[in-house]
Amino acid sequence: MTADSDPGLFECMFSMRAMRRLKPDPVPPEMIAKILEAATQAPSGQNTQRWAFLVITEEEGRTFFGQNYRDWIYRLMGDRAPPEDDNSKPARQMKAALHLADHMHEVPLIILACGKRDWPFVVPQEERVGLAPPSYGSIYPAVQNILLTCRGLGLGASLTTVHQMFEPELREFFEIPEDYGVVASIPIGFPLGNFGPVTRDPISKKAHYEKWGQQREAP
Amino acid sequence: MTADSDPGLFECMFSMRAMRRLKPDPVPPEMIAKILEAATQAPSGQNTQRWAFLVITEEEGRTFFGQNYRDWIYRLMGDRAPPEDDNSKPARQMKAALHLADHMHEVPLIILACGKRDWPFVVPQEERVGLAPPSYGSIYPAVQNILLTCRGLGLGASLTTVHQMFEPELREFFEIPEDYGVVASIPIGFPLGNFGPVTRDPISKKAHYEKWGQQREAP
Repeated sequence: MTADSDPGLFECMFSMRAMRRLKPDPVPPEMIAKILEAATQAPSGQNTQRWAFLVITEEEGRTFFGQNYRDWIYRLMGDRAPPEDDNSKPARQMKAALHLADHMHEVPLIILACGKRDWPFVVPQEERVGLAPPSYGSIYPAVQNILLTCRGLGLGASLTTVHQMFEPELREFFEIPEDYGVVASIPIGFPLGNFGPVTRDPISKKAHYEKWGQQREAP
Repeated sequence: MTADSDPGLFECMFSMRAMRRLKPDPVPPEMIAKILEAATQAPSGQNTQRWAFLVITEEEGRTFFGQNYRDWIYRLMGDRAPPEDDNSKPARQMKAALHLADHMHEVPLIILACGKRDWPFVVPQEERVGLAPPSYGSIYPAVQNILLTCRGLGLGASLTTVHQMFEPELREFFEIPEDYGVVASIPIGFPLGNFGPVTRDPISKKAHYEKWGQQREAP
């Protein structure tokens, strides 16, 4: 797969699972450029494009991010790490999350998707106290474009928000100004495993027709 | 374009603009099913899938949504409607937004993307007052999948959040329970205009390398 090919939209969308076991091999610059360009194709409120993407590929940044990320994963997980021989789905998921944490410092590309802080228009003036949140609705569509583009290029990626636990340190280290919030962090690399279908509830459980509670079988 | 074809990922992503001029022709049920299935392929925090999609196609719901939407667009816009002969980019954008508002009641398919309310783990217990927000990070990736799938199927769509201005009425009309927030509303139909490239700032303005402020030309 090269940055110039164009795989199927649905092929990508329907086989894009979180890839947490990644090779340390660097991501070619033209793929990084493609990922970033795809991100900026996403919609944003009134096309204000108040996003910023911090691209981390060098050892210093990866080590800083990886150490903090790993520390926090283990702190959040506490003693809930699954036993070696537990092969249930939740256990496998947790092991993949721990694998990512243990190897985050070796992941060749980490993108921090940032959003300018801005009060949503529905928040009344008198309730606007402290820092405004970043506009999630104007950043997450770009994040999904990043994930799909990675899938399209044969790169593994996943979406994490654990950086929020060390956002002050993160902000200081990468010199991120206070008027931007770090919305998502996306570790990216060539995958060790294979892409494949995801486990999801059927749409008959998630869709309601005309009124809430009116559910149907898929046609 | 049918629900079975698979257009190029990048072809779709790089020509997916907000389509606000739509035909009233109904969207075939198999396309609605494809859109919903694509939505549920998106990632969500720990795969909790706390999303729900309210599908509006019948006249009663479209009329209710359309009237409220139109009222609020005109109220928010005030007297800033551009003169007929202004063909500047912002004026054209605003005219398209007004066109959508004027015709919302005729749009054949409106999807309300809802998210279960849940405090993010970074919010300390003592700050958890009132209703939790829906988990935006677990809904907007699904919203982007909806938009891309529409593009892939040849359907026009756009992302709006104006429903927030009448969320209590919306909730009552469609019987949406309080533990779900309506995150985005997506009007969908066959487009009157053409898909095409979007206007975006170059990535050299939006990407930072290794540290904030270190910007580069694209390779």
